[in-house]
Amino acid sequence: MVSKVLVTGGAGYIGSHAVVELLANGYECVVVDNLSNSSYESLARVQVLAKKYVPFYKVDLIDLEALTKVFEEHSDIESVIHFAGLKAVGESSQIPLQYYQNNVSGTLVLLQLMQKYRVKEFVFSSSATVYGDYTRYPGIIQVPETCPLQPTNPYGHTKFTIENILRDVSASGGWKFAILRYFNPIGAHPSGLIGEDPLGIPNNLLPYMAQVAVGRREKLSVFGNDYDTRDGTPIRDYIHVVDLAKGHVAALKYLQDQENDICEEWNLGSGKGSSVLEMYDAFTRSCGIKISKEIVGRRNGDVPLLVAKPTKAELELNWKTELGVKESCEDLWRWVTKNPFGYSQHGVIGTTVHKGDYDNRLVTLGHGSRFQLIISNRGASIIDLLVDGQSIVLGPGDPGDYSGATIGRYANRIVGGKYDLDGKVHQLTTNDNGNTNHSSVGCYSEKHFLGPLVKTPSKGVFIAEYVLLDEQPRDFQSDLQVSVIYTLDVQAKALDIQYQAVLTKGESTPINLTNHTYFNLNKVNADTVQGTEIRLATNKAVGLDGTLHQVDVSTFNDKEEEVTILDSVEPRIDHCFVVAESTSLDSTKGKLRPVLRASHPESHISLEVLTTEPSFQLYTGDGLTGFTPRSGFAVEPARYVNAINDERWKKTVTLSQGDAYRSRIVYRFT
Amino acid sequence: MVSKVLVTGGAGYIGSHAVVELLANGYECVVVDNLSNSSYESLARVQVLAKKYVPFYKVDLIDLEALTKVFEEHSDIESVIHFAGLKAVGESSQIPLQYYQNNVSGTLVLLQLMQKYRVKEFVFSSSATVYGDYTRYPGIIQVPETCPLQPTNPYGHTKFTIENILRDVSASGGWKFAILRYFNPIGAHPSGLIGEDPLGIPNNLLPYMAQVAVGRREKLSVFGNDYDTRDGTPIRDYIHVVDLAKGHVAALKYLQDQENDICEEWNLGSGKGSSVLEMYDAFTRSCGIKISKEIVGRRNGDVPLLVAKPTKAELELNWKTELGVKESCEDLWRWVTKNPFGYSQHGVIGTTVHKGDYDNRLVTLGHGSRFQLIISNRGASIIDLLVDGQSIVLGPGDPGDYSGATIGRYANRIVGGKYDLDGKVHQLTTNDNGNTNHSSVGCYSEKHFLGPLVKTPSKGVFIAEYVLLDEQPRDFQSDLQVSVIYTLDVQAKALDIQYQAVLTKGESTPINLTNHTYFNLNKVNADTVQGTEIRLATNKAVGLDGTLHQVDVSTFNDKEEEVTILDSVEPRIDHCFVVAESTSLDSTKGKLRPVLRASHPESHISLEVLTTEPSFQLYTGDGLTGFTPRSGFAVEPARYVNAINDERWKKTVTLSQGDAYRSRIVYRFT
Repeated sequence: MVSKVLVTGGAGYIGSHAVVELLANGYECVVVDNLSNSSYESLARVQVLAKKYVPFYKVDLIDLEALTKVFEEHSDIESVIHFAGLKAVGESSQIPLQYYQNNVSGTLVLLQLMQKYRVKEFVFSSSATVYGDYTRYPGIIQVPETCPLQPTNPYGHTKFTIENILRDVSASGGWKFAILRYFNPIGAHPSGLIGEDPLGIPNNLLPYMAQVAVGRREKLSVFGNDYDTRDGTPIRDYIHVVDLAKGHVAALKYLQDQENDICEEWNLGSGKGSSVLEMYDAFTRSCGIKISKEIVGRRNGDVPLLVAKPTKAELELNWKTELGVKESCEDLWRWVTKNPFGYSQHGVIGTTVHKGDYDNRLVTLGHGSRFQLIISNRGASIIDLLVDGQSIVLGPGDPGDYSGATIGRYANRIVGGKYDLDGKVHQLTTNDNGNTNHSSVGCYSEKHFLGPLVKTPSKGVFIAEYVLLDEQPRDFQSDLQVSVIYTLDVQAKALDIQYQAVLTKGESTPINLTNHTYFNLNKVNADTVQGTEIRLATNKAVGLDGTLHQVDVSTFNDKEEEVTILDSVEPRIDHCFVVAESTSLDSTKGKLRPVLRASHPESHISLEVLTTEPSFQLYTGDGLTGFTPRSGFAVEPARYVNAINDERWKKTVTLSQGDAYRSRIVYRFT
Repeated sequence: MVSKVLVTGGAGYIGSHAVVELLANGYECVVVDNLSNSSYESLARVQVLAKKYVPFYKVDLIDLEALTKVFEEHSDIESVIHFAGLKAVGESSQIPLQYYQNNVSGTLVLLQLMQKYRVKEFVFSSSATVYGDYTRYPGIIQVPETCPLQPTNPYGHTKFTIENILRDVSASGGWKFAILRYFNPIGAHPSGLIGEDPLGIPNNLLPYMAQVAVGRREKLSVFGNDYDTRDGTPIRDYIHVVDLAKGHVAALKYLQDQENDICEEWNLGSGKGSSVLEMYDAFTRSCGIKISKEIVGRRNGDVPLLVAKPTKAELELNWKTELGVKESCEDLWRWVTKNPFGYSQHGVIGTTVHKGDYDNRLVTLGHGSRFQLIISNRGASIIDLLVDGQSIVLGPGDPGDYSGATIGRYANRIVGGKYDLDGKVHQLTTNDNGNTNHSSVGCYSEKHFLGPLVKTPSKGVFIAEYVLLDEQPRDFQSDLQVSVIYTLDVQAKALDIQYQAVLTKGESTPINLTNHTYFNLNKVNADTVQGTEIRLATNKAVGLDGTLHQVDVSTFNDKEEEVTILDSVEPRIDHCFVVAESTSLDSTKGKLRPVLRASHPESHISLEVLTTEPSFQLYTGDGLTGFTPRSGFAVEPARYVNAINDERWKKTVTLSQGDAYRSRIVYRFT
């Protein structure tokens, strides 16, 4: 039985790490976040990292109507982990009203809807701040949950108020509440993919030091070294965010194991205290960079000592920290060096076409440059490709045109829609002509891909990875996991697409992947490809019957004046041209070959298509329905047409357990 | 300079009393209330009592949009007194979430809008409940404001939370906050018009005893007599609600006198404690009724002692209680005996035609009986009159038809629109025919009347009093205060209308008041008055030139067969019939005479119109525009037409300082 958890603030620092741990523990997550201090990018990455879909709603908790929609659309939510909230101590003194509204009123709306939809389990992000300065009780080094609460700032008051609300609401019956009092979360996911991305000037020590280390800030200010502590700087209980995230899973499991109502508080801390100067030393050791620091005056609201007595969580939740300050600093440093500007990457922007529709989010790579790619989760599609500001692809059209999309599980035709594998005959849905084309139903072009995980490994190079969970398909058997990796090189004006697929469940399956972009190199001037000059690596094509025939089209070897010019009606091409022997399931082991060159004299834009694939379908778009016919031509490198039904090539399109299907296509512009 | 105060919860027990005191102190009030535990009736009464208009909005504070509208429409709001909130201690433990949402989230929305609209002054209704059981500090009899807070129930927590919010928000700058910690408000306004009207079973001692005294409850339960107090029952600091209301005015004035930001707490209490049994004795003495009581177990959350140290308010706000327990009990008893079911009166209902339009509220008198009157604030109009369930009046129509409305300041024609008074000639706006009719502009038919104040002095008798502040009129000079009192006697099927007007400011002014209802005794069967049989007290009419002439219409003295029958076109009557000498400004000192009898053979309904007025205009509705011509006839008892321009009658229509204009009309049905 899968249990669905609503995670509020799930795009934030702690929330995103908790989502990773929840998914790893078999929970389904629905995330709401107003993104006021977080980025959807974190969740795009989490989904690729975890290979799990996480529905996302950009919702402010105070918006009853929008939040109601979430509960309506996910009537199977069983529990809520509530991270959402403003959290900067200093800011809370400047704009206390916003803190109360966001944190307190927001929580009340959430509880109201939980009551309405009969969701009982609630894990709440409280804070050690609720204790205030517990050195008012002499002799306490590790603060226990039973310590009277006396927060010293509006942020702490909001947490304290919500705790009180939970205790009062719990007393009215019908609830299971876990109140988790965090100490100081630091570090990042060891993958380096998610971490803390503070907006503006960081409020906390570690993110601040990290920004100094990468050169974003000048020096660290140490707020006071005259506290009554071992080195005069305040002592805190630092806890690795992954440990903290695991604490939430432990608390949720604990609640789910309880038969009766419950409302309990647990410290989530290590029990060990580190001073500011000790953390400074630890972090500089991890990053190997000398960080300038300056001792300045005390900061309002800071207390000298805040270390957890962690035994209650250890005994009851069976949870304790496993990672130390050293691992935290190393993971933080990995995150920071890989993501010096957090989730922001120069030249990368994400937008939603329809407000809030994060399932069809557009991501632009190379934004603002001379070579830009816009891609979408639906079909991991190429929505636009801009060469020197000129759009040269058709963009989204009718579903039957497959424009820009990834094609799978089996691109191109299967004769009769029939194949046999491992001695079994399989029948797919067929088109009017009796064959299956581009899988006919359940084509990848209509599927939601997870991600993308975007990286910028070097200046002007952008990598975006989409993942598809091709599970329980309508026609084919077996489950696949498919990656589509776009690499945009602005300098080289090259777009590289790499496909990989592995079988995750079931028997061997046919596979053949490609991209179905329609190019119109003169799109700014004309509605059709008229005037486009093309040459192919070959004029030999393989037919549905497996025999080769020659097509009247010019090749790289022909004289320059023999170039094939596409006019408004002729030539009509829809053939699978053969450029190499089809031998391997992983074509990327072979050579990357140019297979088609196209240019247009009016726009002066030239395209070279290269691939590791043994053949490519060239289609002059004569049957387009979402666009004017012949408004673009498609070049679809892939395996031989109908290879699944030809014993010579069958193994190149048959994916079995332990194998990996791979292919590569490159579009290069001049 | 008039200062405008937004009063949230201003229709409630304490709120309505505060509105009275604010108005008495020259403040303007705007009231918002969700009416969840109060009645608009209280404000209808307050307006008649105070003779001041109070705009009302049925708004829940949590509804940002609706509350924004209030601030937009009253951009001159300078301060807020915030009474709105749920307040039952016991209930708060059952539905804590609603308590937090209503009280805390509601306050946050209010503060948000105050910030947006730059309203700084805020007086908050806190509660002595925030102290909790202060006997935990030995030796404190009167609790000072400095006592640490430790409320013991969710209701107290909501007040405590809001206090914390105010202190945090205040620290961010730009606010003036007065936190008033009430002790136990009791009593009612000495007028007996407003008081506490608890929904359901009263939570508090005095309202409960009162309901036992009037027979609505069986007996009083005394919750515990084993407390460590002088007689074993809990001791409270009871404070007369009028004193409490005055404390709010004092606090508001204090805030307004401050130049700087402020956030202070004040106890509002007497400093004197009374036990439950002492209050029982005091109340039974006041009402003279023996009240059954029973000692039962302690109630959850009750503390033994809650008495204010009142000196801070005395010193700083210059406020202290002036009324004692005796006055409180007497005033409570007056309220309860006059209003045994609070604001609910059997046979009386109020409705708004357009949602939230309390300025045009409809009140039905005799609801559910054989004789029902529906009246409206606009023009203090008769909207409907139902005889044995049959509507026999036209109801609202075009403004020019004056249907059902009160007519003033000067009903009927003034020749040339001109008059002279005290040696000065005045020119009014005239109609196309060169005369002024029904004041031509600014007629009372279009004016908003305050109230009504509805009373049910005996079974089947309903009195509704409207008040008009006829100030700064467009055509006339001088300010008037006008009362229109409808008395409906269901048994007698008689509707009595009494008019009174006094001059409140300025020189003498013409006056002539009447009601302009169109009757159609056969309305259920026919669109016109066709077939209505009428007889008048006289057939002599006075013309615009002051001379008498005879009209061809049957009189009471004629033989029965000589009755005048109104047909679809004839007779066309629009004359001022004279039934008595016109001698007095106050016609009610004279005789009430029958002046017209009408009946319809099909509906069998008969109407007799009686009046103390010397004449009446009879109009067969031939010029109706909002209805079919002749769909109703109007009988308008008043002074002689154009009397203001005839020295013989001028004094009967001239209102001077110290005089009172009075008149009376009765419609009687059989």
